[in-house]
Amino acid sequence: MTNSHTNSLQLRIGIVGLGNAGSALLPSIAKHPNVRVTAASGRNKERLEKFARDYQAEYHLSVEDLCRSEQVDAVYIASPTELHVKHVQIATHYKKHIIVEKPLAVSVEEADMLIQAADRAGIHLIVGHSFSFEPPIRKIREIINEGTLGNVKMINNWYFNDWMYRFRTPEELDTALGGGVTYRQGSHQFDIIRYIGGGMLRSVRAMTGRWDESRPTEGAHAAFLEFENGTVATAVYNGYDHFLTTELTFGIGEGGPSKRAQGYAASRKAIQQLKNSDEERELKSQKGYGGNQSKNYSEEKHHQPFFGLTVVSCERGDIRQSPNGLYVYGENEKYEIQLPNETGRDVMVAELYEAVVHGKPPIHDGRWGKANLEVCQAVLESARERKEIYLSHQVAVDSSERKVSK
Amino acid sequence: MTNSHTNSLQLRIGIVGLGNAGSALLPSIAKHPNVRVTAASGRNKERLEKFARDYQAEYHLSVEDLCRSEQVDAVYIASPTELHVKHVQIATHYKKHIIVEKPLAVSVEEADMLIQAADRAGIHLIVGHSFSFEPPIRKIREIINEGTLGNVKMINNWYFNDWMYRFRTPEELDTALGGGVTYRQGSHQFDIIRYIGGGMLRSVRAMTGRWDESRPTEGAHAAFLEFENGTVATAVYNGYDHFLTTELTFGIGEGGPSKRAQGYAASRKAIQQLKNSDEERELKSQKGYGGNQSKNYSEEKHHQPFFGLTVVSCERGDIRQSPNGLYVYGENEKYEIQLPNETGRDVMVAELYEAVVHGKPPIHDGRWGKANLEVCQAVLESARERKEIYLSHQVAVDSSERKVSK
Repeated sequence: MTNSHTNSLQLRIGIVGLGNAGSALLPSIAKHPNVRVTAASGRNKERLEKFARDYQAEYHLSVEDLCRSEQVDAVYIASPTELHVKHVQIATHYKKHIIVEKPLAVSVEEADMLIQAADRAGIHLIVGHSFSFEPPIRKIREIINEGTLGNVKMINNWYFNDWMYRFRTPEELDTALGGGVTYRQGSHQFDIIRYIGGGMLRSVRAMTGRWDESRPTEGAHAAFLEFENGTVATAVYNGYDHFLTTELTFGIGEGGPSKRAQGYAASRKAIQQLKNSDEERELKSQKGYGGNQSKNYSEEKHHQPFFGLTVVSCERGDIRQSPNGLYVYGENEKYEIQLPNETGRDVMVAELYEAVVHGKPPIHDGRWGKANLEVCQAVLESARERKEIYLSHQVAVDSSERKVSK
Repeated sequence: MTNSHTNSLQLRIGIVGLGNAGSALLPSIAKHPNVRVTAASGRNKERLEKFARDYQAEYHLSVEDLCRSEQVDAVYIASPTELHVKHVQIATHYKKHIIVEKPLAVSVEEADMLIQAADRAGIHLIVGHSFSFEPPIRKIREIINEGTLGNVKMINNWYFNDWMYRFRTPEELDTALGGGVTYRQGSHQFDIIRYIGGGMLRSVRAMTGRWDESRPTEGAHAAFLEFENGTVATAVYNGYDHFLTTELTFGIGEGGPSKRAQGYAASRKAIQQLKNSDEERELKSQKGYGGNQSKNYSEEKHHQPFFGLTVVSCERGDIRQSPNGLYVYGENEKYEIQLPNETGRDVMVAELYEAVVHGKPPIHDGRWGKANLEVCQAVLESARERKEIYLSHQVAVDSSERKVSK
């Protein structure tokens, strides 16, 4: 950002891609007193025009034009995964700070290239939104750090949902392009685990499952993850829309109350009615800004989101989420902590602002995102090779402890 | 058993050890029309005399005397784990059929020796009671075999309870003597997983936790288990009495409704009040036959027992336990199956009877028990070495598929 903006402490954001993710950031930007949305780019001119009117903002039909704009200090890259490399390169070229939607890239080499480009350009690169921005996950780590429960020893997460049968673009169902649950959802699940456990994973042993030929990508996985300090985690995911972990999490999922109200296996049954992937892509695009299926993120009642069921075991107690906070099972009592009405995207916008304006190193920087990506790839590799995979790109949560693993 | 008994189809059982396990078998023996209890041995003469009056049975102060009795065709060895080897050897010497409480032994070498002794003596050796005798677990495998849900791909179990703080003998808290949750409870948890997955595990990657210095044995573990056919399982156990999985299983545990009604962490708090391990051993012994804390197993209301929370994923559906049966999550509907009012110990008595009287090979024979033991040991070894351990003593559930692994 320019010096004049540093002085007035204002940060102006341009959004690349007004789909589901891009739209979801708008309320968090609006809530931050010193951050504004000033531009967007995309392919659908009609929706861009609506956005420009709604926000008195610019719109551009190319990412290059958006990044060239003097009204933009930072960009939120919410384009499809396969375009992240290109779009991050454009943004670094114009020295815009960046939040790029996870995953940063589909290979560690590409991630490295982008991290180095950001470093050379002297800009901040944040990868998100991922689930460790969410208040319940942050609070779990805070309780662990406080120390009463002793060291964290075991982190277990199960997430059973309908991921495979939500409306998908073909890319989201193509592993080579970063599709499937291991890339798309592992980047949340392993991020949660790494955040709670301190970041430095040592190895991964895993299985992945492709159980529906009509959607030929990973729809399930199970992983055993060991940290360098001996803490372990298990991560189980099943996106085939049978049992749902919302049955165990007060009916609350990632975005609030469960959809099971629509009937058993409603997502899978809806997909089976579609004629082809173009129809599915079009339905998904209706969830974007101005689409007829778009959510009004500003008006949505807030719940603490559940990325499935997580139980964290320390030496002297366990922690899991309550409907709007946490249950702490200590030595002598079980008690509940209520959490404030804040979202993970609010935290992400603040992390960018603090980095750009006050020079505070962000946790979720490119190296953190690369470390998550490494875990996703190790899960795929361990499943393929049927053996344990050792990691070499891990970083610690606490930047004061940051070092490359091994 | 003698020919005269084969003709009349009657099987007479002597019980070695009238503790908790020994007493728990009595109602199952009573329910079987062709099985009777005719003798018991133990150390507490007063209780043995009470037993002899109650059941019009013999009693003996040594296992040797019990096994020498002509009124006994088979023995149920429910003595402490460290005495199993000696007691199985005595029983095989006198050619009595055997049910030995799990674990069969504490080393694979000892297990082999006992299996060979039983083979040479021409008697049946069954290891149990373990949890795969229980109707919900058997029914899960039956549904999988039926085929509608496709192949079983992923088996996940969590069990969080108060195991470490129930009344324990010193042996139960000494890993070298087969104590701790990995031996004592792993022999249920891995047994469930092996039974549902078909038996033939390939490898184990695991962590074990000793988090309370005052009870220095394994109180927690997490394991990733892969079958030869690629099916995987995760097994998570935490016996430190904080979070309890009964919160997720309708308040039902192994033996019926949860004890949390007694207040948070009641087990741990009770243990902290004890003066020494002698007091604890004495309290535990009161749970045995005729003790002032003994359960009346015959009058206990039956619930399908929950060994924690198990979710089984097949290609086209998931299965988990309902309060008195199973929930099946199929392609188009979720439905419940009610199970009959039968216990795992009933099934175990029937398995022995069918083996002895009708020559039907038991599933839970010595080789099955040895394979479970191998998994317990592999979990301990994987945790120590921080690497994947490959197995070589696994056997299939279906005896027609039985072969030694690899």
